[in-house]
Amino acid sequence: MDERKISMAVIRRLPRYYRYLGDLLDEGVTKISSKNLSAKMGVTASQIRQDFNNFGGFGQQGYGYNVEYLYTEIGKILGLNRVYKMILVGAGNLGQALANYTSFGKRGFELVGIFDINPKIVGLKIHGVEVHDVDKMEEFVKANEIDIAILTTPRLGVESVAKNLAKWGVQGIWNFSPEDLLNLDGIVVEHVDLSQSLMTLAYQIYSKNSK
Amino acid sequence: MDERKISMAVIRRLPRYYRYLGDLLDEGVTKISSKNLSAKMGVTASQIRQDFNNFGGFGQQGYGYNVEYLYTEIGKILGLNRVYKMILVGAGNLGQALANYTSFGKRGFELVGIFDINPKIVGLKIHGVEVHDVDKMEEFVKANEIDIAILTTPRLGVESVAKNLAKWGVQGIWNFSPEDLLNLDGIVVEHVDLSQSLMTLAYQIYSKNSK
Repeated sequence: MDERKISMAVIRRLPRYYRYLGDLLDEGVTKISSKNLSAKMGVTASQIRQDFNNFGGFGQQGYGYNVEYLYTEIGKILGLNRVYKMILVGAGNLGQALANYTSFGKRGFELVGIFDINPKIVGLKIHGVEVHDVDKMEEFVKANEIDIAILTTPRLGVESVAKNLAKWGVQGIWNFSPEDLLNLDGIVVEHVDLSQSLMTLAYQIYSKNSK
Repeated sequence: MDERKISMAVIRRLPRYYRYLGDLLDEGVTKISSKNLSAKMGVTASQIRQDFNNFGGFGQQGYGYNVEYLYTEIGKILGLNRVYKMILVGAGNLGQALANYTSFGKRGFELVGIFDINPKIVGLKIHGVEVHDVDKMEEFVKANEIDIAILTTPRLGVESVAKNLAKWGVQGIWNFSPEDLLNLDGIVVEHVDLSQSLMTLAYQIYSKNSK
Protein backbone atom coordinates (compact mmCIF):
# COMPACT_ATOMS: atom_id res chain seq x y z
CA MET A 1 0.00 0.00 0.00
CA ASP A 2 1.23 3.51 -0.79
CA GLU A 3 0.01 5.90 1.91
CA ARG A 4 0.92 8.95 -0.14
CA LYS A 5 -2.01 8.28 -2.46
CA ILE A 6 -4.56 8.59 0.34
CA SER A 7 -6.62 11.76 0.17
CA MET A 8 -6.61 14.39 2.92
CA ALA A 9 -10.39 13.85 3.26
CA VAL A 10 -9.74 10.29 4.43
CA ILE A 11 -6.85 11.39 6.65
CA ARG A 12 -9.08 14.00 8.32
CA ARG A 13 -11.59 11.28 9.23
CA LEU A 14 -8.95 9.11 10.93
CA PRO A 15 -8.71 11.24 14.12
CA ARG A 16 -12.48 10.87 14.55
CA TYR A 17 -12.22 7.07 14.24
CA TYR A 18 -9.34 7.23 16.68
CA ARG A 19 -11.38 9.25 19.20
CA TYR A 20 -14.45 6.98 18.98
CA LEU A 21 -12.33 3.85 19.26
CA GLY A 22 -10.59 5.34 22.31
CA ASP A 23 -14.02 5.92 23.88
CA LEU A 24 -15.00 2.30 23.14
CA LEU A 25 -11.77 1.05 24.73
CA ASP A 26 -12.51 3.16 27.84
CA GLU A 27 -15.96 1.53 27.95
CA GLY A 28 -14.40 -1.96 27.77
CA VAL A 29 -15.75 -2.75 24.29
CA THR A 30 -13.44 -5.20 22.46
CA LYS A 31 -15.24 -5.81 19.13
CA ILE A 32 -17.38 -3.57 16.94
CA SER A 33 -19.06 -4.04 13.57
CA SER A 34 -18.78 -1.37 10.89
CA LYS A 35 -22.58 -1.01 11.22
CA ASN A 36 -22.39 -0.13 14.93
CA LEU A 37 -19.35 2.10 14.45
CA SER A 38 -21.22 3.85 11.65
CA ALA A 39 -24.27 4.50 13.86
CA LYS A 40 -22.04 5.95 16.58
CA MET A 41 -20.10 8.21 14.20
CA GLY A 42 -22.83 9.32 11.83
CA VAL A 43 -21.12 8.07 8.67
CA THR A 44 -22.25 5.15 6.49
CA ALA A 45 -20.88 1.65 7.08
CA SER A 46 -19.78 1.59 3.44
CA GLN A 47 -17.79 4.80 3.99
CA ILE A 48 -16.02 3.18 6.95
CA ARG A 49 -15.16 0.05 4.94
CA GLN A 50 -13.93 2.21 2.05
CA ASP A 51 -11.78 4.32 4.38
CA PHE A 52 -10.27 1.28 6.06
CA ASN A 53 -9.60 -0.42 2.71
CA ASN A 54 -7.09 2.37 2.03
CA PHE A 55 -4.99 0.81 4.77
CA GLY A 56 -5.56 -2.86 4.02
CA GLY A 57 -8.97 -3.28 5.69
CA PHE A 58 -8.05 -3.93 9.35
CA GLY A 59 -9.80 -7.28 9.67
CA GLN A 60 -12.97 -9.14 8.78
CA GLN A 61 -16.22 -7.34 8.26
CA GLY A 62 -18.67 -10.09 9.25
CA TYR A 63 -16.91 -10.76 12.52
CA GLY A 64 -16.41 -7.09 13.39
CA TYR A 65 -13.25 -5.12 14.12
CA ASN A 66 -10.97 -5.67 17.08
CA VAL A 67 -11.23 -2.29 18.82
CA GLU A 68 -7.77 -2.24 20.40
CA TYR A 69 -6.02 -3.39 17.22
CA LEU A 70 -7.89 -0.81 15.13
CA TYR A 71 -7.12 1.95 17.65
CA THR A 72 -3.42 1.08 17.67
CA GLU A 73 -3.15 0.77 13.88
CA ILE A 74 -4.92 4.08 13.21
CA GLY A 75 -2.68 5.71 15.82
CA LYS A 76 0.37 4.39 13.92
CA ILE A 77 -0.94 5.72 10.59
CA LEU A 78 -1.48 9.14 12.19
CA GLY A 79 2.06 9.07 13.55
CA LEU A 80 0.86 9.01 17.17
CA ASN A 81 3.24 6.24 18.28
CA ARG A 82 5.86 8.83 19.26
CA VAL A 83 6.15 12.03 21.27
CA TYR A 84 5.85 15.47 19.65
CA LYS A 85 7.58 18.27 21.54
CA MET A 86 5.65 21.51 21.27
CA ILE A 87 6.08 25.17 22.10
CA LEU A 88 3.29 27.71 22.36
CA VAL A 89 3.92 31.21 20.98
CA GLY A 90 1.48 33.72 22.45
CA ALA A 91 0.11 33.24 25.97
CA GLY A 92 -3.12 35.24 25.66
CA ASN A 93 -6.52 33.71 26.43
CA LEU A 94 -6.43 31.39 23.44
CA GLY A 95 -2.87 30.29 24.15
CA GLN A 96 -3.73 29.61 27.79
CA ALA A 97 -6.79 27.61 26.77
CA LEU A 98 -4.63 25.46 24.50
CA ALA A 99 -1.93 25.04 27.17
CA ASN A 100 -4.59 23.68 29.52
CA TYR A 101 -5.85 20.97 27.13
CA THR A 102 -4.62 17.99 29.10
CA SER A 103 -5.90 15.52 26.54
CA PHE A 104 -3.13 16.53 24.11
CA GLY A 105 -0.49 15.33 26.56
CA LYS A 106 -2.17 11.92 26.82
CA ARG A 107 -1.79 11.48 23.05
CA GLY A 108 1.93 12.23 22.99
CA PHE A 109 1.83 15.99 22.38
CA GLU A 110 4.08 17.42 25.06
CA LEU A 111 4.11 21.17 25.66
CA VAL A 112 7.62 22.06 26.87
CA GLY A 113 7.82 25.86 26.54
CA ILE A 114 5.66 28.97 26.21
CA PHE A 115 6.80 32.28 24.69
CA ASP A 116 5.33 35.75 24.98
CA ILE A 117 6.45 39.37 24.65
CA ASN A 118 4.55 40.55 27.75
CA PRO A 119 7.09 41.05 30.60
CA LYS A 120 4.26 40.68 33.14
CA ILE A 121 3.77 37.01 32.36
CA VAL A 122 7.35 36.01 31.45
CA GLY A 123 8.60 33.76 34.27
CA LEU A 124 5.11 32.57 35.25
CA LYS A 125 4.00 28.99 34.74
CA ILE A 126 0.86 27.97 32.84
CA HIS A 127 -0.27 24.40 33.45
CA GLY A 128 3.23 23.77 34.84
CA VAL A 129 5.06 25.12 31.79
CA GLU A 130 7.25 28.21 32.06
CA VAL A 131 6.62 31.35 29.99
CA HIS A 132 9.83 32.67 28.40
CA ASP A 133 10.60 35.91 26.60
CA VAL A 134 10.41 35.52 22.81
CA ASP A 135 14.09 36.55 22.66
CA LYS A 136 14.95 33.12 24.06
CA MET A 137 12.99 31.22 21.43
CA GLU A 138 15.79 30.41 18.95
CA GLU A 139 18.06 28.96 21.61
CA PHE A 140 15.22 27.00 23.23
CA VAL A 141 13.91 25.56 19.96
CA LYS A 142 17.34 24.39 18.87
CA ALA A 143 18.32 22.97 22.28
CA ASN A 144 15.02 21.10 22.75
CA GLU A 145 14.49 19.91 19.16
CA ILE A 146 10.94 21.22 19.00
CA ASP A 147 8.62 19.45 16.53
CA ILE A 148 5.53 21.66 16.63
CA ALA A 149 4.92 25.35 17.33
CA ILE A 150 1.43 26.53 18.23
CA LEU A 151 1.03 30.11 16.98
CA THR A 152 -1.68 32.24 18.58
CA THR A 153 0.03 35.57 17.85
CA PRO A 154 -1.72 38.41 16.01
CA ARG A 155 -1.47 38.70 12.28
CA LEU A 156 1.36 41.21 12.27
CA GLY A 157 4.73 39.49 12.30
CA VAL A 158 3.42 35.94 12.30
CA GLU A 159 4.94 35.16 8.91
CA SER A 160 8.49 36.05 9.98
CA VAL A 161 8.08 34.05 13.21
CA ALA A 162 6.98 31.07 11.10
CA LYS A 163 9.95 31.43 8.73
CA ASN A 164 12.36 31.53 11.65
CA LEU A 165 10.79 28.45 13.23
CA ALA A 166 11.22 26.56 9.97
CA LYS A 167 14.87 27.64 9.80
CA TRP A 168 15.43 26.46 13.38
CA GLY A 169 14.16 22.98 12.55
CA VAL A 170 10.53 23.04 13.70
CA GLN A 171 8.54 20.63 11.52
CA GLY A 172 4.98 21.77 11.90
CA ILE A 173 2.96 24.86 12.79
CA TRP A 174 -0.47 24.72 14.38
CA ASN A 175 -1.62 28.10 13.19
CA PHE A 176 -4.38 30.00 15.02
CA SER A 177 -3.45 33.39 13.54
CA PRO A 178 -5.64 34.91 10.81
CA GLU A 179 -2.75 34.58 8.33
CA ASP A 180 -2.67 31.54 6.00
CA LEU A 181 1.15 31.15 6.10
CA LEU A 182 1.47 29.97 2.52
CA ASN A 183 4.71 29.22 0.70
CA LEU A 184 6.80 28.23 3.71
CA ASP A 185 9.49 25.74 2.77
CA GLY A 186 10.12 22.58 4.75
CA ILE A 187 7.43 23.09 7.38
CA VAL A 188 3.86 21.82 7.52
CA VAL A 189 1.10 24.29 8.45
CA GLU A 190 -2.28 23.26 9.88
CA HIS A 191 -4.50 26.33 9.98
CA VAL A 192 -7.38 26.61 12.42
CA ASP A 193 -9.13 29.43 10.58
CA LEU A 194 -11.78 30.67 12.99
CA SER A 195 -13.29 33.31 10.73
CA GLN A 196 -13.61 30.77 7.91
CA SER A 197 -15.37 28.42 10.30
CA LEU A 198 -17.83 31.05 11.57
CA MET A 199 -18.62 32.25 8.04
CA THR A 200 -19.23 28.66 6.93
CA LEU A 201 -21.70 28.32 9.79
CA ALA A 202 -23.44 31.53 8.69
CA TYR A 203 -23.69 30.16 5.15
CA GLN A 204 -25.27 26.93 6.38
CA ILE A 205 -27.85 28.85 8.45
CA TYR A 206 -28.57 31.20 5.55
CA SER A 207 -28.93 28.45 2.95
CA LYS A 208 -31.13 26.34 5.27
CA ASN A 209 -33.47 29.33 5.70
CA SER A 210 -33.64 30.16 2.00
CA LYS A 211 -34.76 26.68 0.96
CA MET B 1 -28.23 28.69 -10.62
CA ASP B 2 -29.07 26.26 -7.84
CA GLU B 3 -26.88 26.97 -4.83
CA ARG B 4 -27.82 23.71 -3.15
CA LYS B 5 -25.70 21.80 -5.67
CA ILE B 6 -22.52 23.61 -4.66
CA SER B 7 -20.14 21.43 -2.68
CA MET B 8 -19.03 22.27 0.86
CA ALA B 9 -15.43 22.28 -0.41
CA VAL B 10 -16.26 25.29 -2.58
CA ILE B 11 -18.25 26.92 0.21
CA ARG B 12 -15.30 26.53 2.60
CA ARG B 13 -13.06 28.40 0.16
CA LEU B 14 -15.43 31.40 -0.06
CA PRO B 15 -14.50 32.87 3.36
CA ARG B 16 -10.86 32.86 2.26
CA TYR B 17 -11.73 34.74 -0.94
CA TYR B 18 -13.79 37.09 1.20
CA ARG B 19 -10.89 37.74 3.57
CA TYR B 20 -8.35 38.35 0.78
CA LEU B 21 -10.75 40.64 -1.07
CA GLY B 22 -11.37 42.57 2.16
CA ASP B 23 -7.60 43.03 2.51
CA LEU B 24 -7.38 44.28 -1.09
CA LEU B 25 -10.22 46.75 -0.44
CA ASP B 26 -8.38 48.01 2.64
CA GLU B 27 -5.29 48.51 0.45
CA GLY B 28 -7.34 50.51 -2.09
CA VAL B 29 -7.10 47.89 -4.86
CA THR B 30 -10.14 48.10 -7.18
CA LYS B 31 -9.42 45.43 -9.84
CA ILE B 32 -7.64 42.09 -9.68
CA SER B 33 -7.00 39.33 -12.22
CA SER B 34 -7.60 35.70 -11.32
CA LYS B 35 -3.85 35.21 -11.86
CA ASN B 36 -2.91 37.79 -9.21
CA LEU B 37 -5.60 36.62 -6.81
CA SER B 38 -4.33 33.07 -7.29
CA ALA B 39 -0.73 34.07 -6.47
CA LYS B 40 -1.93 35.83 -3.30
CA MET B 41 -4.07 32.92 -2.14
CA GLY B 42 -1.95 29.95 -3.15
CA VAL B 43 -4.61 28.31 -5.32
CA THR B 44 -4.52 27.96 -9.12
CA ALA B 45 -6.19 30.59 -11.33
CA SER B 46 -8.22 27.82 -12.92
CA GLN B 47 -9.50 26.77 -9.47
CA ILE B 48 -10.63 30.35 -8.83
CA ARG B 49 -12.45 30.56 -12.18
CA GLN B 50 -14.07 27.17 -11.54
CA ASP B 51 -15.18 28.22 -8.05
CA PHE B 52 -16.62 31.52 -9.29
CA ASN B 53 -18.41 29.81 -12.19
CA ASN B 54 -20.56 28.08 -9.58
CA PHE B 55 -22.06 31.49 -8.91
CA GLY B 56 -22.26 32.82 -12.45
CA GLY B 57 -18.63 33.92 -12.85
CA PHE B 58 -18.62 37.42 -11.31
CA GLY B 59 -17.36 39.30 -14.37
CA GLN B 60 -14.87 39.16 -17.20
CA GLN B 61 -11.62 37.28 -16.86
CA GLY B 62 -9.41 39.28 -19.25
CA TYR B 63 -10.36 42.57 -17.67
CA GLY B 64 -10.03 41.30 -14.09
CA TYR B 65 -12.55 41.23 -11.26
CA ASN B 66 -14.02 44.31 -9.62
CA VAL B 67 -12.80 43.81 -6.03
CA GLU B 68 -15.65 45.60 -4.27
CA TYR B 69 -18.34 43.88 -6.37
CA LEU B 70 -16.77 40.47 -5.81
CA TYR B 71 -16.41 41.12 -2.07
CA THR B 72 -20.06 42.16 -1.77
CA GLU B 73 -21.37 39.26 -3.86
CA ILE B 74 -19.38 36.63 -1.96
CA GLY B 75 -20.59 38.20 1.29
CA LYS B 76 -24.18 37.82 0.06
CA ILE B 77 -23.64 34.16 -0.86
CA LEU B 78 -22.21 33.52 2.60
CA GLY B 79 -25.22 35.21 4.18
CA LEU B 80 -23.13 38.03 5.63
CA ASN B 81 -25.49 40.84 4.55
CA ARG B 82 -27.34 40.60 7.87
CA VAL B 83 -26.61 40.52 11.59
CA TYR B 84 -26.27 37.25 13.52
CA LYS B 85 -26.99 37.52 17.23
CA MET B 86 -24.75 35.23 19.23
CA ILE B 87 -24.40 33.95 22.76
CA LEU B 88 -21.32 32.34 24.24
CA VAL B 89 -21.78 29.38 26.58
CA GLY B 90 -18.69 28.84 28.75
CA ALA B 91 -16.50 31.79 29.74
CA GLY B 92 -13.23 29.97 30.37
CA ASN B 93 -10.00 30.93 28.58
CA LEU B 94 -11.22 29.75 25.20
CA GLY B 95 -14.59 31.48 25.60
CA GLN B 96 -12.90 34.71 26.64
CA ALA B 97 -10.54 34.52 23.68
CA LEU B 98 -13.53 34.16 21.34
CA ALA B 99 -15.44 36.99 23.08
CA ASN B 100 -12.47 39.27 22.43
CA TYR B 101 -12.33 38.61 18.68
CA THR B 102 -13.42 42.05 17.54
CA SER B 103 -13.23 41.13 13.87
CA PHE B 104 -16.37 38.99 14.21
CA GLY B 105 -18.38 42.08 15.17
CA LYS B 106 -17.21 43.90 12.05
CA ARG B 107 -18.67 41.12 9.90
CA GLY B 108 -22.11 41.19 11.48
CA PHE B 109 -21.63 38.62 14.24
CA GLU B 110 -22.84 40.35 17.36
CA LEU B 111 -22.16 38.78 20.76
CA VAL B 112 -25.04 39.80 23.04
CA GLY B 113 -24.77 37.46 26.03
CA ILE B 114 -22.35 35.16 27.85
CA PHE B 115 -23.36 32.26 30.10
CA ASP B 116 -21.39 30.37 32.72
CA ILE B 117 -22.02 28.25 35.80
CA ASN B 118 -19.21 29.85 37.84
CA PRO B 119 -20.79 32.30 40.35
CA LYS B 120 -17.47 34.18 40.59
CA ILE B 121 -17.76 35.49 37.04
CA VAL B 122 -21.54 35.83 36.72
CA GLY B 123 -22.32 39.56 36.63
CA LEU B 124 -18.90 40.52 35.22
CA LYS B 125 -18.48 41.92 31.73
CA ILE B 126 -16.16 40.47 29.09
CA HIS B 127 -15.45 42.75 26.17
CA GLY B 128 -18.48 44.77 27.30
CA VAL B 129 -20.85 41.77 27.34
CA GLU B 130 -22.41 40.61 30.61
CA VAL B 131 -21.92 37.10 31.98
CA HIS B 132 -25.22 35.53 33.11
CA ASP B 133 -25.96 32.38 35.06
CA VAL B 134 -26.84 29.44 32.79
CA ASP B 135 -30.23 29.30 34.54
CA LYS B 136 -31.16 32.47 32.66
CA MET B 137 -30.29 31.07 29.25
CA GLU B 138 -33.73 29.89 28.10
CA GLU B 139 -35.40 33.22 28.86
CA PHE B 140 -32.55 35.20 27.30
CA VAL B 141 -32.38 33.12 24.11
CA LYS B 142 -36.12 33.37 23.52
CA ALA B 143 -36.34 37.09 24.34
CA ASN B 144 -33.35 38.05 22.16
CA GLU B 145 -33.97 35.68 19.24
CA ILE B 146 -30.44 34.29 19.26
CA ASP B 147 -29.15 32.91 15.94
CA ILE B 148 -25.87 31.32 16.98
CA ALA B 149 -24.56 29.77 20.21
CA ILE B 150 -20.83 29.34 20.70
CA LEU B 151 -20.24 26.27 22.88
CA THR B 152 -16.94 26.00 24.72
CA THR B 153 -18.27 23.82 27.53
CA PRO B 154 -16.68 20.49 28.47
CA ARG B 155 -17.89 17.28 26.90
CA LEU B 156 -20.21 16.31 29.72
CA GLY B 157 -23.67 17.79 29.23
CA VAL B 158 -22.94 19.57 25.97
CA GLU B 159 -25.41 17.43 24.04
CA SER B 160 -28.38 18.35 26.25
CA VAL B 161 -27.40 22.04 26.11
CA ALA B 162 -27.36 21.79 22.32
CA LYS B 163 -30.76 20.08 22.21
CA ASN B 164 -32.26 22.79 24.41
CA LEU B 165 -30.79 25.56 22.27
CA ALA B 166 -32.36 23.98 19.17
CA LYS B 167 -35.72 23.79 20.97
CA TRP B 168 -35.47 27.46 21.94
CA GLY B 169 -34.99 28.52 18.32
CA VAL B 170 -31.21 28.88 17.98
CA GLN B 171 -30.26 28.13 14.38
CA GLY B 172 -26.59 27.30 14.55
CA ILE B 173 -23.99 26.02 16.99
CA TRP B 174 -20.32 26.91 16.75
CA ASN B 175 -19.05 23.88 18.62
CA PHE B 176 -15.65 23.92 20.36
CA SER B 177 -16.43 20.99 22.64
CA PRO B 178 -14.86 17.57 21.94
CA GLU B 179 -18.33 16.14 21.20
CA ASP B 180 -19.46 15.91 17.55
CA LEU B 181 -23.13 16.77 18.29
CA LEU B 182 -24.59 14.53 15.60
CA ASN B 183 -28.27 13.93 14.97
CA LEU B 184 -29.59 17.27 16.20
CA ASP B 185 -32.77 18.26 14.41
CA GLY B 186 -33.29 21.73 12.98
CA ILE B 187 -29.96 23.21 14.00
CA VAL B 188 -26.70 23.50 12.08
CA VAL B 189 -23.47 22.49 13.84
CA GLU B 190 -20.02 23.73 12.80
CA HIS B 191 -17.43 21.79 14.77
CA VAL B 192 -13.98 23.22 15.47
CA ASP B 193 -12.41 19.89 16.37
CA LEU B 194 -9.04 20.78 17.90
CA SER B 195 -7.83 17.25 18.51
CA GLN B 196 -8.65 16.28 14.91
CA SER B 197 -6.68 19.28 13.71
CA LEU B 198 -3.62 18.52 15.85
CA MET B 199 -3.63 14.84 14.84
CA THR B 200 -3.87 15.81 11.17
CA LEU B 201 -0.80 18.01 11.67
CA ALA B 202 1.04 15.08 13.28
CA TYR B 203 0.12 12.89 10.31
CA GLN B 204 1.47 15.45 7.86
CA ILE B 205 4.77 15.72 9.77
CA TYR B 206 5.02 11.94 10.05
CA SER B 207 4.26 11.27 6.38
CA LYS B 208 6.68 14.00 5.24
CA ASN B 209 9.46 12.37 7.25
CA SER B 210 8.73 8.84 6.04
CA LYS B 211 9.01 9.74 2.35
